[in-house]
Amino acid sequence: MSEPLRLGIAGLGTVGASLVRVLKEKHNFLAARCGRPIEVVAVSARDRKRKRDCDISGMRWYDDPVELAADSEVDVFVELIGGDDGPADESVRRALESGKHVVTANKALLARHGVELAEMAEEKGLLLNFEAAVAGGIPIIKAMRETLTANTITRVFGILNGTCNYILTRMELEGLGYQECLADAQRLGYAEADPTFDVEGYDTAHKLAILTSLAFGTQIASDKIYVEGISNITPADIQAAADLGYRIKLLGVAQKTDTGIEQRVHPTLVPVDAPIAQIHGVTNAVAIDGDIVGQLVLSGPGAGGMATASAVAGDIADIAKSLPGPQTVPSLGTPAEKLQPYEQARMRAHEGGYFIRLSLNDRAGAFASIASRMAEQDISLQSIVQHRTGQETDDSPETAQPVILVTHRTTESAIRAAFEKIGADGHLAAKPQMIRIEQ
Amino acid sequence: MSEPLRLGIAGLGTVGASLVRVLKEKHNFLAARCGRPIEVVAVSARDRKRKRDCDISGMRWYDDPVELAADSEVDVFVELIGGDDGPADESVRRALESGKHVVTANKALLARHGVELAEMAEEKGLLLNFEAAVAGGIPIIKAMRETLTANTITRVFGILNGTCNYILTRMELEGLGYQECLADAQRLGYAEADPTFDVEGYDTAHKLAILTSLAFGTQIASDKIYVEGISNITPADIQAAADLGYRIKLLGVAQKTDTGIEQRVHPTLVPVDAPIAQIHGVTNAVAIDGDIVGQLVLSGPGAGGMATASAVAGDIADIAKSLPGPQTVPSLGTPAEKLQPYEQARMRAHEGGYFIRLSLNDRAGAFASIASRMAEQDISLQSIVQHRTGQETDDSPETAQPVILVTHRTTESAIRAAFEKIGADGHLAAKPQMIRIEQ
Repeated sequence: MSEPLRLGIAGLGTVGASLVRVLKEKHNFLAARCGRPIEVVAVSARDRKRKRDCDISGMRWYDDPVELAADSEVDVFVELIGGDDGPADESVRRALESGKHVVTANKALLARHGVELAEMAEEKGLLLNFEAAVAGGIPIIKAMRETLTANTITRVFGILNGTCNYILTRMELEGLGYQECLADAQRLGYAEADPTFDVEGYDTAHKLAILTSLAFGTQIASDKIYVEGISNITPADIQAAADLGYRIKLLGVAQKTDTGIEQRVHPTLVPVDAPIAQIHGVTNAVAIDGDIVGQLVLSGPGAGGMATASAVAGDIADIAKSLPGPQTVPSLGTPAEKLQPYEQARMRAHEGGYFIRLSLNDRAGAFASIASRMAEQDISLQSIVQHRTGQETDDSPETAQPVILVTHRTTESAIRAAFEKIGADGHLAAKPQMIRIEQ
Repeated sequence: MSEPLRLGIAGLGTVGASLVRVLKEKHNFLAARCGRPIEVVAVSARDRKRKRDCDISGMRWYDDPVELAADSEVDVFVELIGGDDGPADESVRRALESGKHVVTANKALLARHGVELAEMAEEKGLLLNFEAAVAGGIPIIKAMRETLTANTITRVFGILNGTCNYILTRMELEGLGYQECLADAQRLGYAEADPTFDVEGYDTAHKLAILTSLAFGTQIASDKIYVEGISNITPADIQAAADLGYRIKLLGVAQKTDTGIEQRVHPTLVPVDAPIAQIHGVTNAVAIDGDIVGQLVLSGPGAGGMATASAVAGDIADIAKSLPGPQTVPSLGTPAEKLQPYEQARMRAHEGGYFIRLSLNDRAGAFASIASRMAEQDISLQSIVQHRTGQETDDSPETAQPVILVTHRTTESAIRAAFEKIGADGHLAAKPQMIRIEQ
């Protein structure tokens, strides 16, 4: 048995405490598999006195994670603090500067500074592992970074936020409204008191930014993502989508197009028999289209202390197994210095089908007018449905006539131009709903 | 850019030819990602003159793969010959003996000699990579060997044979018979002229044996698997299962029980909303239950030249990236010398629910008798259905009365004892069907 691998863990919240427990309970099991014991020798958190769900006796305590990161008796620095700046960022840099491998679950940090940190790690022959940062326990980073190395990825998309998928699943299965499901999610601990970060799509966007870099060998560009959340989705949308053979999911999608790479987060209609449509509740899933392999779909728990700790522990075990020897697996699949600039495809150039739900003041005349506005933009309609659910009252007056349109493949700019004209024509009794379709 | 990684490829069938093409087309792309070019310097196949779908000009030719394996100008030996003995086995041993890393897609070889070969590789600090051997393009080996290192696996199960899943999917969706779907599978190249190896479950068993070792840290025991194929499944079974909310899939299941580890391959009823039930056609999927992560499900193309080549190329890229330096990732997740003996759970001790389809000569009296035979064995029934599909004629005379029983959790030995008695009682008009249920 070789020398132990010595860990310093910064951040003892749900994930950190779960990790400390797992490493203790599985000590001998992990030592046998990794060929060396894994010991937590130092920890850091905000408040030393706080009661925790893990035993940290015998570990060196640091109030400052940056000091922990510089501890010369630590081989691997595990960052579980969170946040894209401040102590998380400083401590990871300090750890790399002082020659330590880093394992992190921090999507925000990577979305903002990932390329720079990967470059620092690679220059020094260190590993920067972050399996837990995207889709929790699902081995999506390793799959994209290693197994799919020979594939040119054309698209990666997924359900990356359990809160949103929980809410949409409840809305669909029980016919409930958004607010009611959100309140339940909050009660169950699936959503924060301020749910904005999850429900408005920002959490998904951070994760998508990392997947985009892995997929296309481009620099991370988390500030160039089209983001739309789920708070506008109504039971009427979900019912109308179901009638047409679709489910509504919040997807993060990164896709290569002729004009660049699209990064978009929005509620999406997916065919009810698509693998991604089968993902219910807080479960996450990622689908990858590779030119050699075809489509892979990986699903599992995307959050939670234990599932996240599983991925963090896997990253640590990788380091334990492969030491000694220089570490040359590029963190982002491509050596950081060779990542290409991200070329953003314009959202208006996006092509796809659209689901449109309108409330018309007077259907007879209004519909003819709308149809001609669509035709002016060369938008052809795949289906036109008058939707009767008795649920229209939530966003339209009783006299309004709901109409659902599904378009054939068209462009975002054509849809927006048509919407502008339709709005000006004055036939709409309420703000129209538009949801993109992903096949 | 570092020195090229030099490959010798033995076997130029569908997978080998696809791999040679991929490595040529992606030469620069792979070199950038791996930090060194990957060059195929030598190849071997049975017939030099055979027309192939790849260009092997400029590569050294060997009639004998064992000689190729000893070529001192080769860094990695890629075995795509197939078979659990003979040239595949000899050449892999020779490659390891002469200090070469090995990448193989050969499930039969690993199912028989995997532990011994892993031990040879680990003693010499070499990698023996075989992502393509189980479930083709799906990164299941890496997930189990690396990402899930800290998890104690309780069960791994999956659809590991595309031929069977294609046949069962067609039978279900189109209400066709087994023979008709098999003939179509043969016509489309999904099934061999002699389909026994696929449809009787042996291919699934080979793959399962490898997954079992990875899951439980035990020696590979491919001769201790309960194997039952799909050739007895009728449209009546599929229809009756559907009426009860189930689909029928050929699963390979490895599961820890109180008496040991179960390895079983058999047609299985899975709830229609389970992730594994959504896998249609030739697609494969593997579900893993880990004590920390929960359940992961990975799905994708399980066969085909390109999907398999994708996984082989990923294994090669791993070696290209990590050289130089000793290789210490154990092939089977646990160092081969530390693998525990496989302790077989007796199939008769298997516990679960059972689907039973009977044809009774005279339902009134017969049913009472059968119910009491079940009760004698403490088997309690969850549902009893008289099934009317008009399809009973395929295995029962017209006067026979079909009855479907679904049991609560019971044991295989109880079911078999009850069947023996029921058979002797003389009420059955045809051989009874019994299909296990997996939740």
